[in-house]
Amino acid sequence: MLQLLQKVRSGDISPARALETLEILPYENLEFARPDHHRALRQGYPEVILAAGKTHEQVAAIARKLKEHNEAILITKASAECYRKVAECLDSARYNEHARIITFHKARRTKPSPGITVLSGGTADIPVAEEAAVTAEEMGNKVERAYDVGVAGIHRLLDQVPRLRQAHVIVAVAGMEGALPSVVSGLVSVPVIAVPTSVGYGASFQGLAALLAMLNSCAAGVSVVNIDNGFGAGYIAALINRAYQPKRQ
Amino acid sequence: MLQLLQKVRSGDISPARALETLEILPYENLEFARPDHHRALRQGYPEVILAAGKTHEQVAAIARKLKEHNEAILITKASAECYRKVAECLDSARYNEHARIITFHKARRTKPSPGITVLSGGTADIPVAEEAAVTAEEMGNKVERAYDVGVAGIHRLLDQVPRLRQAHVIVAVAGMEGALPSVVSGLVSVPVIAVPTSVGYGASFQGLAALLAMLNSCAAGVSVVNIDNGFGAGYIAALINRAYQPKRQ
Amino acid sequence: MLQLLQKVRSGDISPARALETLEILPYENLEFARPDHHRALRQGYPEVILAAGKTHEQVAAIARKLKEHNEAILITKASAECYRKVAECLDSARYNEHARIITFHKARRTKPSPGITVLSGGTADIPVAEEAAVTAEEMGNKVERAYDVGVAGIHRLLDQVPRLRQAHVIVAVAGMEGALPSVVSGLVSVPVIAVPTSVGYGASFQGLAALLAMLNSCAAGVSVVNIDNGFGAGYIAALINRAYQPKRQ
Amino acid sequence: MLQLLQKVRSGDISPARALETLEILPYENLEFARPDHHRALRQGYPEVILAAGKTHEQVAAIARKLKEHNEAILITKASAECYRKVAECLDSARYNEHARIITFHKARRTKPSPGITVLSGGTADIPVAEEAAVTAEEMGNKVERAYDVGVAGIHRLLDQVPRLRQAHVIVAVAGMEGALPSVVSGLVSVPVIAVPTSVGYGASFQGLAALLAMLNSCAAGVSVVNIDNGFGAGYIAALINRAYQPKRQ
Amino acid sequence: MLQLLQKVRSGDISPARALETLEILPYENLEFARPDHHRALRQGYPEVILAAGKTHEQVAAIARKLKEHNEAILITKASAECYRKVAECLDSARYNEHARIITFHKARRTKPSPGITVLSGGTADIPVAEEAAVTAEEMGNKVERAYDVGVAGIHRLLDQVPRLRQAHVIVAVAGMEGALPSVVSGLVSVPVIAVPTSVGYGASFQGLAALLAMLNSCAAGVSVVNIDNGFGAGYIAALINRAYQPKRQ
Amino acid sequence: MLQLLQKVRSGDISPARALETLEILPYENLEFARPDHHRALRQGYPEVILAAGKTHEQVAAIARKLKEHNEAILITKASAECYRKVAECLDSARYNEHARIITFHKARRTKPSPGITVLSGGTADIPVAEEAAVTAEEMGNKVERAYDVGVAGIHRLLDQVPRLRQAHVIVAVAGMEGALPSVVSGLVSVPVIAVPTSVGYGASFQGLAALLAMLNSCAAGVSVVNIDNGFGAGYIAALINRAYQPKRQ
Amino acid sequence: MLQLLQKVRSGDISPARALETLEILPYENLEFARPDHHRALRQGYPEVILAAGKTHEQVAAIARKLKEHNEAILITKASAECYRKVAECLDSARYNEHARIITFHKARRTKPSPGITVLSGGTADIPVAEEAAVTAEEMGNKVERAYDVGVAGIHRLLDQVPRLRQAHVIVAVAGMEGALPSVVSGLVSVPVIAVPTSVGYGASFQGLAALLAMLNSCAAGVSVVNIDNGFGAGYIAALINRAYQPKRQ
Amino acid sequence: MLQLLQKVRSGDISPARALETLEILPYENLEFARPDHHRALRQGYPEVILAAGKTHEQVAAIARKLKEHNEAILITKASAECYRKVAECLDSARYNEHARIITFHKARRTKPSPGITVLSGGTADIPVAEEAAVTAEEMGNKVERAYDVGVAGIHRLLDQVPRLRQAHVIVAVAGMEGALPSVVSGLVSVPVIAVPTSVGYGASFQGLAALLAMLNSCAAGVSVVNIDNGFGAGYIAALINRAYQPKRQ
Repeated sequence: MLQLLQKVRSGDISPARALETLEILPYENLEFARPDHHRALRQGYPEVILAAGKTHEQVAAIARKLKEHNEAILITKASAECYRKVAECLDSARYNEHARIITFHKARRTKPSPGITVLSGGTADIPVAEEAAVTAEEMGNKVERAYDVGVAGIHRLLDQVPRLRQAHVIVAVAGMEGALPSVVSGLVSVPVIAVPTSVGYGASFQGLAALLAMLNSCAAGVSVVNIDNGFGAGYIAALINRAYQPKRQ
Repeated sequence: MLQLLQKVRSGDISPARALETLEILPYENLEFARPDHHRALRQGYPEVILAAGKTHEQVAAIARKLKEHNEAILITKASAECYRKVAECLDSARYNEHARIITFHKARRTKPSPGITVLSGGTADIPVAEEAAVTAEEMGNKVERAYDVGVAGIHRLLDQVPRLRQAHVIVAVAGMEGALPSVVSGLVSVPVIAVPTSVGYGASFQGLAALLAMLNSCAAGVSVVNIDNGFGAGYIAALINRAYQPKRQ
Repeated sequence: MLQLLQKVRSGDISPARALETLEILPYENLEFARPDHHRALRQGYPEVILAAGKTHEQVAAIARKLKEHNEAILITKASAECYRKVAECLDSARYNEHARIITFHKARRTKPSPGITVLSGGTADIPVAEEAAVTAEEMGNKVERAYDVGVAGIHRLLDQVPRLRQAHVIVAVAGMEGALPSVVSGLVSVPVIAVPTSVGYGASFQGLAALLAMLNSCAAGVSVVNIDNGFGAGYIAALINRAYQPKRQ
Repeated sequence: MLQLLQKVRSGDISPARALETLEILPYENLEFARPDHHRALRQGYPEVILAAGKTHEQVAAIARKLKEHNEAILITKASAECYRKVAECLDSARYNEHARIITFHKARRTKPSPGITVLSGGTADIPVAEEAAVTAEEMGNKVERAYDVGVAGIHRLLDQVPRLRQAHVIVAVAGMEGALPSVVSGLVSVPVIAVPTSVGYGASFQGLAALLAMLNSCAAGVSVVNIDNGFGAGYIAALINRAYQPKRQ
Repeated sequence: MLQLLQKVRSGDISPARALETLEILPYENLEFARPDHHRALRQGYPEVILAAGKTHEQVAAIARKLKEHNEAILITKASAECYRKVAECLDSARYNEHARIITFHKARRTKPSPGITVLSGGTADIPVAEEAAVTAEEMGNKVERAYDVGVAGIHRLLDQVPRLRQAHVIVAVAGMEGALPSVVSGLVSVPVIAVPTSVGYGASFQGLAALLAMLNSCAAGVSVVNIDNGFGAGYIAALINRAYQPKRQ
Repeated sequence: MLQLLQKVRSGDISPARALETLEILPYENLEFARPDHHRALRQGYPEVILAAGKTHEQVAAIARKLKEHNEAILITKASAECYRKVAECLDSARYNEHARIITFHKARRTKPSPGITVLSGGTADIPVAEEAAVTAEEMGNKVERAYDVGVAGIHRLLDQVPRLRQAHVIVAVAGMEGALPSVVSGLVSVPVIAVPTSVGYGASFQGLAALLAMLNSCAAGVSVVNIDNGFGAGYIAALINRAYQPKRQ
Repeated sequence: MLQLLQKVRSGDISPARALETLEILPYENLEFARPDHHRALRQGYPEVILAAGKTHEQVAAIARKLKEHNEAILITKASAECYRKVAECLDSARYNEHARIITFHKARRTKPSPGITVLSGGTADIPVAEEAAVTAEEMGNKVERAYDVGVAGIHRLLDQVPRLRQAHVIVAVAGMEGALPSVVSGLVSVPVIAVPTSVGYGASFQGLAALLAMLNSCAAGVSVVNIDNGFGAGYIAALINRAYQPKRQ
Repeated sequence: MLQLLQKVRSGDISPARALETLEILPYENLEFARPDHHRALRQGYPEVILAAGKTHEQVAAIARKLKEHNEAILITKASAECYRKVAECLDSARYNEHARIITFHKARRTKPSPGITVLSGGTADIPVAEEAAVTAEEMGNKVERAYDVGVAGIHRLLDQVPRLRQAHVIVAVAGMEGALPSVVSGLVSVPVIAVPTSVGYGASFQGLAALLAMLNSCAAGVSVVNIDNGFGAGYIAALINRAYQPKRQ
């Protein structure tokens, strides 16, 4: 493109003709600009690979390529086997077995920002909750965890109220009837990111019951991500919490 | 059948031949016996007509017929128009506009038994809750009501805990995310009958969200009836509460 | 909290100030109170762990903790492998292979209360029926069983009528078209807890057909639990049957 | 085609050339043949128009055209208004308000064949049951009706057993939980045509519950038609019953 | 019951008192009568066991018991492993690998009745088609088979028209779009039993697409059984074809 | 942008600085270019407004605006009332009542290209078929129509084979079981655009049955548009048929 | 509770006994405390009433009661008729016809905070988008609107990129295929609240298609609210944007 | 048939009698004609076998038979194991592991026609995209591929615009939210064949989310095939692209 503009300058090509060329021009010229801008905005955020649906070889190949231009990489829904493949080329990568996440950083992380709390309704929801928590941590946040605080034993949740009131954003992970986010949202005045899980059986229909419940929350302030999408919830929580960090942008 | 037995007695027919006859005999001979037995078991319970799906004329005709042999009649999901038609032949029938129930008694009711509490999550759930409450009342119970105690403002529900703990059985009516029964069941040690309502919009799918949530309750002690089936819940609550009545059977 | 009240007594703090403190106070102070109350209400009831969705290690760890403060433990949807893990720390635990339940008691059980009957539509529904029966037994009840009494051979069910009429509450377990609870409920005057099972194929959609059929029962008196939730049905039956026990509370 | 064959005969065209022509020939030549054959097979059967989804004018126009070549016409799912339009051109047409069917015959009907019984589970299912019954009657059958014999009052159905055992084929119409066909099929040894209806509310999902239940019938011998498709069931019953008619074909 | 009647005869008990006793009497006395009647009606029909959902041991135990009182046994949805278990106690049992059916007869079969044709849309539908065909054969019928005659190559189906027109009843088995029964039913004047199969992928949703298509057939004369329920279709076809047998009953 | 380029030419701005500007530049500069390109490609194609979901005022306002820059406008799913509103500002607009389409042209249309055939399964599918046909006609095509050629009377369709074999692309519109496209696609070697309609009742679920059937077509060559989307099918058919026009581009 | 504490003070009751009382004490004493705390947290936020599902009288009664203790009221999904009823008691209430929201303030609003952008995919989505925008405005925010920027004309959206990059949070409202939030989220680094609408027909299934698409967004940063829930999205956007306000809390 | 015609010629049979015979004649006479015609139309196209649902033996047997009369064979959804079985009889067959397609040609292929572009949204969609691409290649086309151009990074797609504008038809393959075809269709003026994939998790419901999104595309020009049906899309693309080939037919 610079060449084109230099030709305009030198008179080799008329402005009108250059305009035509630019209109037809593929967009790839803008391509390198956008990522830069992105990089500025997302500074300190890892690149993310969803391992599910890809072969271990594909994951490893993408990771190797991203490693060149990025400070950090996050690989979600990764099996231990996938980790072994990735570790062959990213030898400092680490694997969080609960969250099923592979993490990789080039440098030391800066001091994490507080403000995110992750809740789980039951013990079986913990892997998804951990996926959310680890994602938010990898994006520079300090995460409070309170697990097994489901609504059938409401006192377990009420005990957490003081801690909940200190959060800037809450991730509420629950399967089965998915009532946790509604109750939580009624107790606080911050956004609640609801994550339905596929925990349950029968009429839970692999998380559909929890998903529908969360979408129909009678409490304002609840938004929802896909079933078992702990990563998405952690990511959004990090985006929201960034507003509270002393020196952003 | 009596004739048959008398013939056996008189020797007109042998026992063996009578046995054959009885085996082939249609069941209608037992018919009048079963209702009797039923009447004993269900003493004090009204006969019930579901008005929905029937013409006003059909409802009125059935009501007229039932009136002859029954002490009380309950007509559910009845419109005001239906009531007008029924009132033409059952002139002492009364209409509960909220519950959309027509009631009719031949005699004074006995002193109602305490032990049933009906809860509603929101204001829009009240018609279904009233259907449950009126049904249970017509079956001889005293009903405590606590409406608009949904889980998004958990303190409204927690305020009811002392009253809830005095109940023998609780009917919890809720639309939207349908979380009320789960929370309630965690607070008490009695059966909770959950009634999903079609209150809500969008992904509530006419009550499907609440129904699935209730079926997946993580609290033991919750059983569920059809969407908007206040009658069924009130009826079951009455069956359960009968066990607590001083002189049953 | 006791300290706070003692300070009020001693005059170190004014009643008005104490009131403020109490209002802000997190709910954890109430926590130890509620369980006590629960324990009173639930006396003789086991603590329950749903094994499905948890690792064997998690189940064993929870069981070990519960063992300290509880008389009895019930672990549902447990595999034989899970049992082996649990048995390492709860050596007197027993495994019911049909019901897939692990049971554990510290003491001898008292004489069980009669009044609960569990029915199954077919042979393939027996595991879920057993889950219900064993749960009710572990909660102190004597359970009558009548299996393979599905509606396609109605005489098999009709033969059970006299027994059914002696029950205080009936659990009806069925897959496929799920018609059993409707027919049963028409024959008795007690609550029927319906359990749809995932038995069937094709358009049974893993128990959805039976679930919907049961929710739409034209017989009053039927309430429904989740697909394959034998535990829930047995638990509710026990709650209902408690009313008939000579000396409760 | 006859012309073509005559040309072959006269030598105007060679057999090989005629073969080519026949291969390319559009199928319309066969068209007038098939209907003839059909007419033979279907003798005495009315032509059928489904009024739903068509304008009254379209229905009337089709009826007018069919009248020319057919002995009898059946118009299903027809409103009274539609009837008025049709009656303008088929003045001897009659309207069955319950079944919502318009019938028209050129001649007197022959003596109807016995062997078809139509059952309905409830009062609200009667319109669909009548659609089946009237269809079968219009196809030359004598139809036994037994309505309101739903499974929640099983004795009402058992009273019908002797009559059921005389049928060659049974149409069982039911909404809500749709259990009627399963129970009926267990009592007889003839084909049962199950018709789910949209009667019900909430989780009946406009007849889906009944449909699924019927498809999952644990009794062999049940086949199913579309929700509210009384016509289809009556038609199939007539096809089956034809085998029992003394002089067919 | 005979004893009771003998007492009436001898005067030990009055007819009125005996009537009371009979009314209360459980239905089990009728039990042995009904099976007899059934046996008469179903003469020549095998007893059927659905192997799916049962353990091999359960299947074998049931088979062993049925063997005592029945001429023939049919075990559907049976694996080869199940067969091995069954063969241990029913040594003359045979296994049809395609149909996945185990058959067992005590005696030679009589000459089969013609009249049933089984069609399959594709090659992958053949196991279900075979299940239907073998079932009908075991019930005393001669079965015509025409496989891979799906509607996408309509000439393959049209070639079968003459054979189709000789059938008394047709079983049409198809997966994917399930259009076969509609086209077939338009070509004949006999009942068509439609069997959707789970053949397909993606939006076939395990046979739901074919099932819905068949239920919505625009051709009168089609009734539908459960997805993959070849047995049910073969059974119904046999019931229908019985009417054509020269000497029934 | 031309101004920018002229400034580069005149030396008011350096090529490097201009590049920066272009990279940051919002895309609106390209906006007027793209439509031009589009206009070239889509020459002779009308602009389209979907009336459903918009107020009559909104439709009229958009139509008025489009009129300025476009040769032709097509408004789909338009009621007669909507037409009256639109006609106020586009006085030469015309309304096709069957297709529910408003059309408007500034100039005479050129000679239409042959090659598109639109089929409908039944009479009730005609409005959607007309929507497809009128859309294709408005885009410069000659459309062959063959309605009421559903698969239940296969000869009606087979009669059309010679005409079908002359088409470049076929639109097959059908409700109920949606089998038409599969059969058609097996008879030709051109693309078939399948349009499911909401015609039917019960388990047609507003066109879902037809939609699923079409997606699962066992005939290669079938692609599907949304339920009742006649416009989309007509539009795609026009795009495909353009390739056959003598002088394109 | 104050009385209780005064009794402790005066020695009328011992601290230990008071503790017991407090443990049993119903939670209602905390009730007035929690709202206060809430009021502090939610300062400047209106109380909200969902009009849908409530009678006009109920809405007006609730509004009248809320008016006493609240600065502002928001009534969503309100019809013009509902507004007329509410205006009788809240005479300064105003009605936004597009957003279908009734608003009421006691005092002048403070200067709104910038940072929220609301996008709509099409014209028909505007009512839901307006519901989001008005809600956020009522909660003290300045809202940028960009409507009809759906993905089928991607340049319309790309033109908005500079404005989008200035937002702190974006609400993306879309029906039909619901792709807008995914594309938007890929262009920015702030949270995107996705609102599916019921705009569409056929296989949009009243917004289900858009809902599922949004839940499955391949772009991180998207969370979803219920179909047509503009209010919820506006509310959450306001909660998120509060973090950027210079002086919060 | 030739024999018949020769008999007409020779006078052995009268034209009228021959006509009767022809009318009754099964359609098999036309059978060998239609394939011929087909062969003409489909010249150069391979015969296709869908391996899924068939045993390896069946696939190999069909392949062996087709080999005799066809130039080329395509076997889709084939496992490596299936390939080994097929290779035993078609020794020059080749296996494309990504596309899971077995190909077989008797002769050299002619020069492929350009005009088809296949896009994939993500890396995990590549197998389905390859199935489409290989199918189109086997049918004589040159295929452009652009993978991983999903809408969440819209610049990746925009970079492809110049290439997209050169295509005659585009296949757009995407899972998750399935937005790719909508965006693509807005950028071009040619038919877009959309292929939803089962890539995703949770509320993607095995591709349902992508399927619904594509059916609801707000961009005209998009038609859809079954989930994961790369073959179908490639086949349709080939049919469309044939129109652009210099010398067809």
